[in-house]
Amino acid sequence: MGKKLRYGMVGGGPGAFIGNVHRKAIASEGTAELVAGCFSTNFEKNLETGDFYNIDKERIYRDYREMAEREKQREDKIDFVSIVTPNSTHFEISKAFLEADIHVMCEKPLCFTSEEAEELYSIAKERNLFFGVMYTYSGYPMVKLAKKFVEDGEIGEIVNVSAEYLQDWLIDQVGGEKQSETKLSVWRTDPKKSGISNCVGDIGSHIENTVAYITGLRPKKLLSVLDYYKMDLDLNANILVEYENGVHGVYSCSQVCVGHLNGLVVRVFGTEGSVEWAQEDPNYLKVTKKNQPEQIYHRGTDYITGRAAELNHIPAGHPEGIVFAVANHYNTFISAIVEKNEGMSIENINLDFPKVEDGVSGVKFIEAAVASSKEGNIWKEV
Amino acid sequence: MGKKLRYGMVGGGPGAFIGNVHRKAIASEGTAELVAGCFSTNFEKNLETGDFYNIDKERIYRDYREMAEREKQREDKIDFVSIVTPNSTHFEISKAFLEADIHVMCEKPLCFTSEEAEELYSIAKERNLFFGVMYTYSGYPMVKLAKKFVEDGEIGEIVNVSAEYLQDWLIDQVGGEKQSETKLSVWRTDPKKSGISNCVGDIGSHIENTVAYITGLRPKKLLSVLDYYKMDLDLNANILVEYENGVHGVYSCSQVCVGHLNGLVVRVFGTEGSVEWAQEDPNYLKVTKKNQPEQIYHRGTDYITGRAAELNHIPAGHPEGIVFAVANHYNTFISAIVEKNEGMSIENINLDFPKVEDGVSGVKFIEAAVASSKEGNIWKEV
Amino acid sequence: MGKKLRYGMVGGGPGAFIGNVHRKAIASEGTAELVAGCFSTNFEKNLETGDFYNIDKERIYRDYREMAEREKQREDKIDFVSIVTPNSTHFEISKAFLEADIHVMCEKPLCFTSEEAEELYSIAKERNLFFGVMYTYSGYPMVKLAKKFVEDGEIGEIVNVSAEYLQDWLIDQVGGEKQSETKLSVWRTDPKKSGISNCVGDIGSHIENTVAYITGLRPKKLLSVLDYYKMDLDLNANILVEYENGVHGVYSCSQVCVGHLNGLVVRVFGTEGSVEWAQEDPNYLKVTKKNQPEQIYHRGTDYITGRAAELNHIPAGHPEGIVFAVANHYNTFISAIVEKNEGMSIENINLDFPKVEDGVSGVKFIEAAVASSKEGNIWKEV
Amino acid sequence: MGKKLRYGMVGGGPGAFIGNVHRKAIASEGTAELVAGCFSTNFEKNLETGDFYNIDKERIYRDYREMAEREKQREDKIDFVSIVTPNSTHFEISKAFLEADIHVMCEKPLCFTSEEAEELYSIAKERNLFFGVMYTYSGYPMVKLAKKFVEDGEIGEIVNVSAEYLQDWLIDQVGGEKQSETKLSVWRTDPKKSGISNCVGDIGSHIENTVAYITGLRPKKLLSVLDYYKMDLDLNANILVEYENGVHGVYSCSQVCVGHLNGLVVRVFGTEGSVEWAQEDPNYLKVTKKNQPEQIYHRGTDYITGRAAELNHIPAGHPEGIVFAVANHYNTFISAIVEKNEGMSIENINLDFPKVEDGVSGVKFIEAAVASSKEGNIWKEV
Repeated sequence: MGKKLRYGMVGGGPGAFIGNVHRKAIASEGTAELVAGCFSTNFEKNLETGDFYNIDKERIYRDYREMAEREKQREDKIDFVSIVTPNSTHFEISKAFLEADIHVMCEKPLCFTSEEAEELYSIAKERNLFFGVMYTYSGYPMVKLAKKFVEDGEIGEIVNVSAEYLQDWLIDQVGGEKQSETKLSVWRTDPKKSGISNCVGDIGSHIENTVAYITGLRPKKLLSVLDYYKMDLDLNANILVEYENGVHGVYSCSQVCVGHLNGLVVRVFGTEGSVEWAQEDPNYLKVTKKNQPEQIYHRGTDYITGRAAELNHIPAGHPEGIVFAVANHYNTFISAIVEKNEGMSIENINLDFPKVEDGVSGVKFIEAAVASSKEGNIWKEV
Repeated sequence: MGKKLRYGMVGGGPGAFIGNVHRKAIASEGTAELVAGCFSTNFEKNLETGDFYNIDKERIYRDYREMAEREKQREDKIDFVSIVTPNSTHFEISKAFLEADIHVMCEKPLCFTSEEAEELYSIAKERNLFFGVMYTYSGYPMVKLAKKFVEDGEIGEIVNVSAEYLQDWLIDQVGGEKQSETKLSVWRTDPKKSGISNCVGDIGSHIENTVAYITGLRPKKLLSVLDYYKMDLDLNANILVEYENGVHGVYSCSQVCVGHLNGLVVRVFGTEGSVEWAQEDPNYLKVTKKNQPEQIYHRGTDYITGRAAELNHIPAGHPEGIVFAVANHYNTFISAIVEKNEGMSIENINLDFPKVEDGVSGVKFIEAAVASSKEGNIWKEV
Repeated sequence: MGKKLRYGMVGGGPGAFIGNVHRKAIASEGTAELVAGCFSTNFEKNLETGDFYNIDKERIYRDYREMAEREKQREDKIDFVSIVTPNSTHFEISKAFLEADIHVMCEKPLCFTSEEAEELYSIAKERNLFFGVMYTYSGYPMVKLAKKFVEDGEIGEIVNVSAEYLQDWLIDQVGGEKQSETKLSVWRTDPKKSGISNCVGDIGSHIENTVAYITGLRPKKLLSVLDYYKMDLDLNANILVEYENGVHGVYSCSQVCVGHLNGLVVRVFGTEGSVEWAQEDPNYLKVTKKNQPEQIYHRGTDYITGRAAELNHIPAGHPEGIVFAVANHYNTFISAIVEKNEGMSIENINLDFPKVEDGVSGVKFIEAAVASSKEGNIWKEV
Repeated sequence: MGKKLRYGMVGGGPGAFIGNVHRKAIASEGTAELVAGCFSTNFEKNLETGDFYNIDKERIYRDYREMAEREKQREDKIDFVSIVTPNSTHFEISKAFLEADIHVMCEKPLCFTSEEAEELYSIAKERNLFFGVMYTYSGYPMVKLAKKFVEDGEIGEIVNVSAEYLQDWLIDQVGGEKQSETKLSVWRTDPKKSGISNCVGDIGSHIENTVAYITGLRPKKLLSVLDYYKMDLDLNANILVEYENGVHGVYSCSQVCVGHLNGLVVRVFGTEGSVEWAQEDPNYLKVTKKNQPEQIYHRGTDYITGRAAELNHIPAGHPEGIVFAVANHYNTFISAIVEKNEGMSIENINLDFPKVEDGVSGVKFIEAAVASSKEGNIWKEV
């Protein structure tokens, strides 16, 4: 290769978890170089981060608007921007960069309303830009293997889906008394920054996306019970879903389930078998065929083929972590930009990264889940 | 001791799984002797089973009515009867023995309708008889330990309950084509024998009972989605519940989830910690306190106290299986009879076995779950 | 059946773990009835136990000699005796009953010296008696499945064996200070009762037996390091072995490995695959074929065939515990006696229970392990 | 920071596993920049790799000697070199760079003989250079937590150590027929490139190092059984060890244990508790205190303190993989260089990375293990 893309970042100042992961993911692959940024609304911190990454001071911007405009005018403008800010700002920032004809990779959720989401989708389509939305978990090889098994008919017709995403880091918020306390990402419990939902918005949407990636199934309607425990936003949710094909599923997400740190678990059951994947142990996939012993597939082994094999970084038995899942999405996204720049026609480009369409679905899912619960736990179309 | 109770059995002919487990459970403890029976409607098989157990031929009966009447008149009549027949017959058989003033241990579900259930409850109360309903799983020591931790406030206030019971033995019934094929217990898919529900009736009711045992919480209302896959009775169900105290939970049960054999898993989450128990690995209990490493408790260890310690049969590390869970219920039930016979007052007798009251709750739960689904997946009071 | 064998027991007074397990195992199957016993050297306790089991007082004996002699003369004499006393007495008691022409099932280890062991072997052979030695673990169905896979060549040629049996119940004995304290089975640390070895004798011998059962391999020579930690007998041992065919293995046993209760784990590695079984989770068998995902076999499933399937008591997913492993051995032993009594020729009788030959091998293994360590951790022929 | 160190690499051409991991580890942290290299003896491939990393062509060298000499003379010479070549070349390459006054991070094993190892040690000492040896596994936070627990006396006095490192990637070499076939790293089975040992050299040495890191214990003597299966170098080994303090341990390593990919497992048993860590699931540490339930510690949680907490990159529940373990070593190594360059005195510098001293111990361990086996499986001083 030799030629790296140039990218900028909005958000991700010192100590920011997600921004850090995005940067590590790109850096470890060496496929793009960070050359511009607006990392913090605090300009000191902004400069500090720029300094750490050896970024030319003139490309450290005071706000994202300035960044989009000024980058647009450079000959060596950034090829894409990574947006890793709180949810409330995703829409306007994404829009600004799209309108500057810069490809976008944005953290999820895409934005606050389905109208905004559709608007972003339209702009990207019109301007022929790639717009990635970082639903990390479909970047794991074993999730791709699960998708392959389902697609190949290895588990037959799907009869049931059970997925959950359990955490416990907001347990002290139950009862509402500690609402004001600061903690990493406590902005998530603030409607101004998080939007209409905290728990479903932050992690329920990951369930929706990961299930959709593996199975191709999107909820047609749903019924949810969101638990607020006296907080302004939800901390826990149990959701029944019905897909287009009439099959049912159940999704549970929580930030108050003590003993679970980041427990995304997806189980898909079919007439001929099942697949099960757990994010905290991501290098394994459990596959059981009807009337056969359960099988544990290990990432990186010779018996794995397809996309899951292509995305292997490290030999089997040497654990890959979450950064590689993010890196896999970036690698595909960056390759797509490179190939497009080289004139390859879109249908020949590998687009296996989460896109603005996924972001739109995610926002609609969140809207439906909140509406169902607010309106008395009734069925809502998604 | 030296003096054993005498018991009879209805159902449990050659090859019957449940009857066999009941007999082994009682025999291994040596606290009661099988002296009468009506094991099969096929009289040859009935005699054969009686012969195997050295039962006096005159106490092998052609039907349960004859058995109840003739036993009633004997001086050495049976102290209790074990009823291990298909669901459809539980009501009438139980009633017959209660009316013969014989204590009853009946398999679950108790009967078909809440009216029947209430009637049985009333007869037992009136006649001052013990009426056990074999919800096996609360017989496991580690379930009792979970109950103790919840009762002792070790996990704080309950905020969420997640429980499932997944099997896969009826996967071939999906689509309805193989409905006629014979298989062990295929009567479960026949409404005439199983009642209004197959999956919820058979295993969903175990979820309800085990959660209630551990937490003291019974669903006040529920909303269910039952999947029939073209069969007459349900094979899969996802159910949202709300308890009396407003806390929510989610129950999933299935006979079509490939890769799961008898997967009852109960997780109770509280403000200070959580407990998790899985029936297929019953000698462990996972307990996590807030901000502490998760802990795996092992049955039979010195650090276990209370009822879970009392019911220990075998030293730690030497696995106890399901027969001991059944035996624990029988031991308590039998001791209760012995103590009552010896004149001990009821409030001093240990009644920690599942009772007709549990059976009533179970039937109501099944009724509500079926009604919710049939009426369009709406909320129903239990 | 209808006709039960009659059996007697030596040892197994109130509170005795092993005697209790033997009785439960036999009782749960109903294939033999306890009619005679010498349960304790304390005659009060002896009578008490007899009373509990409804044994005729005249068949409660003051010592084993009296029991053997008097039973021998009865028309309705016991068909077999179960010996569940401390190790030091196994030889003389077994001998007494063999000489009374009574079949024997004895706890392991068989006796103290290989001379004694050979003598017992000869007497049993001469008198045409069955002599079982209760190496429990080969009674588990999944151990039998492991054996089948090895025998059928599923894992190819064996290249390595790794087995361990770790406990922690004697951790407080390290340093020797608490040697005098009483604790269940503390006789095990007393050379007078345990013989030349505690840890290797009690549990190392189980490793030897279980590996031999699965693989057919017996150590030809070994080198051991026994740790005494200032006690009279070993509490920990690491042993390198070489089998007849030149393949090597490593055995570790311990009573001082905190965190392990009864952790017998056997792993057999071959050119085409491997099998792994763990006693604390006995209903599973891990099988991995070369270049394939690992497979978890579950007891009781339809895909299991052979002896492991025959010995199934309870449907898959409903855990069987250790009592059934003991029961499986007794069932085979008892059937063998019945069939022999009915005149079946020995070569047609299923003898798949651990026998005096296994006991002889066990004693030789213990002798070699102790000698190796005592003589400076050198290689010793077994 | 802003100022990055400059580094060069020897080895690590296209497709090389280890070189790739080293580069990703450094790149993801952004603490040093790759500016020079001799990646392959094939100059085309060498240039290709340089091109990929945007390295100035004049700093792509034809051999390591040229590289050491020419770098030495540059004003902007590399601060350190990473050596990721086959074992046979470690000694000469390391020596060349040390003599050019360049800090070294070398893959393990350090070299072929203890004489060479001592020589490297002396040169580094004399010239006051940091010399890291990449024993990766002590870089994992949970290994550091294990070390802390042992050091803090949480598990009391050590009584036994059991460690293994099992792989299966060379199973087809058993019997020797496929010795010539090419496979990733097949040079490992070639004595010219691997030295006197394959299996013990490659992975047995990791056991030695990881145990030493956690416990502070180094084998004083050992007895080994190496299995060659007709190959020139060992593929399997079982080793008994005795530490300076008289405590014993057992180490098993293998490349022919089907079902194990990279299964380093270390268990340390003490009078008060035990710790257990498994490399394939590196984000967990099992800790059991005497008479208490076992505890599973999770990386990244608030209840973890000390070095394991400092080295946290990603929040709990989001798996970190092996690259972070390597990165942790590099981070410490690079910080040490920076601090030394800034004049900090050596005793104030954090030197918690594996050093040439560890390399020396590793070589001595390998020598003793091979000698023990070759001389008839006898005890050898290390």
